[in-house]
Amino acid sequence: MGGVIFQRLTLIGIGLIGSSIALAARRAGAVGEIVVQTRSQETLDRARALKLGDRYERDPAAAAEGADLVILCVPVGAFETLARAIGPALKPGAIVSDVGSVKASVVRQVAPHLPQGVHLVPAHPVAGTEHSGPDAGFAELFDNRWTIVTPPAGADAEAVAKVDAFWRALGAFVEQMTPEHHDMVLAITSHLPHLIAYNIVGTAAHLEEITQSEVMKFSAGGFRDFTRIAASDPTMWRDVFLHNKDAVLEMLARFGEDLSVLQRAIRFGDGDALYDLFKRTRAIRRGIIEAGQETDAPDFGRRG
Amino acid sequence: MGGVIFQRLTLIGIGLIGSSIALAARRAGAVGEIVVQTRSQETLDRARALKLGDRYERDPAAAAEGADLVILCVPVGAFETLARAIGPALKPGAIVSDVGSVKASVVRQVAPHLPQGVHLVPAHPVAGTEHSGPDAGFAELFDNRWTIVTPPAGADAEAVAKVDAFWRALGAFVEQMTPEHHDMVLAITSHLPHLIAYNIVGTAAHLEEITQSEVMKFSAGGFRDFTRIAASDPTMWRDVFLHNKDAVLEMLARFGEDLSVLQRAIRFGDGDALYDLFKRTRAIRRGIIEAGQETDAPDFGRRG
Repeated sequence: MGGVIFQRLTLIGIGLIGSSIALAARRAGAVGEIVVQTRSQETLDRARALKLGDRYERDPAAAAEGADLVILCVPVGAFETLARAIGPALKPGAIVSDVGSVKASVVRQVAPHLPQGVHLVPAHPVAGTEHSGPDAGFAELFDNRWTIVTPPAGADAEAVAKVDAFWRALGAFVEQMTPEHHDMVLAITSHLPHLIAYNIVGTAAHLEEITQSEVMKFSAGGFRDFTRIAASDPTMWRDVFLHNKDAVLEMLARFGEDLSVLQRAIRFGDGDALYDLFKRTRAIRRGIIEAGQETDAPDFGRRG
Repeated sequence: MGGVIFQRLTLIGIGLIGSSIALAARRAGAVGEIVVQTRSQETLDRARALKLGDRYERDPAAAAEGADLVILCVPVGAFETLARAIGPALKPGAIVSDVGSVKASVVRQVAPHLPQGVHLVPAHPVAGTEHSGPDAGFAELFDNRWTIVTPPAGADAEAVAKVDAFWRALGAFVEQMTPEHHDMVLAITSHLPHLIAYNIVGTAAHLEEITQSEVMKFSAGGFRDFTRIAASDPTMWRDVFLHNKDAVLEMLARFGEDLSVLQRAIRFGDGDALYDLFKRTRAIRRGIIEAGQETDAPDFGRRG
């Protein structure tokens, strides 16, 4: 471990993930210099106050010029515009990566705007919290979490290896897969859970018979768990659903079919069907805990 | 605060909630003596080893005899049988309560079997963890959580006041409502969240294109949050759905309608509709945190 992997890292966007990359890259000594770019002067000033970078830019092209690795850390809906803006400024041999929660769309949006000799190596660190902005970042965010690297067909092997090494230096495990497979896997492990959580919180907010105060007081019965991921960044999640439409609709259809079966079991009092499902689902949690991806403390170890 | 409220407390069932009541009642000095009943000799021996009671019984009637307060702490599907068994053994003036997650069904099942002069005061502590059994209990479980007391029409005011005082002594806030309103409120704040969580974990387990290993590795994207409540006690939850059928089906229908709207917004690329919902749901979490029912630490404060 250790050693500079990229001389100059440019972060386009400095929210939860961007700021965590800055802190983790610094901790690892993985980069020589960090250039921070964001459109908002206020956020840029905040990033400076937090000492997240060595140089601060509002213009994406100026920030990307001369960078060895540029990571797009903004909602994926902005990628095509950004790729157009930074493409001409990139030096030969530069690597463009990102942290978007969808991957096929990233290849479609970004690849056409990169000059010859610049390498696109998309990546997705599967880590985060419900908090947003440069103050939310911390160096440990990626420790023992998986980052998925999704090289497009024909990607430069050396560039892929360097992105892989970069994420390992930041504390992550790395797995490679195609962008399309990534989008299917994340549709079930991340996108559908968020959609369901947003939806149930919305449903609870609109009941006439039950007050908001009652929903809040009695939320410890299970509801409050859903409010955490339903408090995630709205722009980011809007873009995820718009850019992974097919896989999300497919998983939503399967979820709906399974829910109809449960609904029917409740309507007709089929206790055995309910019990069988409820018993099986315990095993998956045990597997996740054994895989080191979850705490085994009751109630996530939280204190009210 | 302080002082003995019930001379003899009998706990029918000694799982997570029963054992937590024993420990919290002892901490508060709220009871003189605790009788622990459970059918399984193994569980009874474990309760004894944990010193949860003063006396241990396998027979419910023997345990209930002479008790001032009997609390049913078993899945609600067993209530009618238990009420039949303990009814004749109850002394005049005794109070029968419970901790079931449904309440109208409890009144229907238990009231007909109680002798004249015995008071039924159902209650529901809205607190718990995903762990089960007598080892899972802890005295602080009810601290700053709500217990809902649901007196049936014509309930004895003094008996209701004593159950109210008992739960406050155990650290809980107390609210009273009708059994029917309770069942509607909990359908959205607890029962539907559990159903949805069980369902999505089941859906993830059955995908052919995605391995279980992938689901587990990448569960930090949101999915793992759902596995916690989907690891709750299967018997208890089977009984909840069988005994709160109408309210759960009603909430499920509303959830389904709202989900169809979201599905349509994704299909037709209506980003504004998605953004509007995702923005509104943040406010509910803030309300829950301000109501003291949730931690404000990122990621529930959990450490992987």
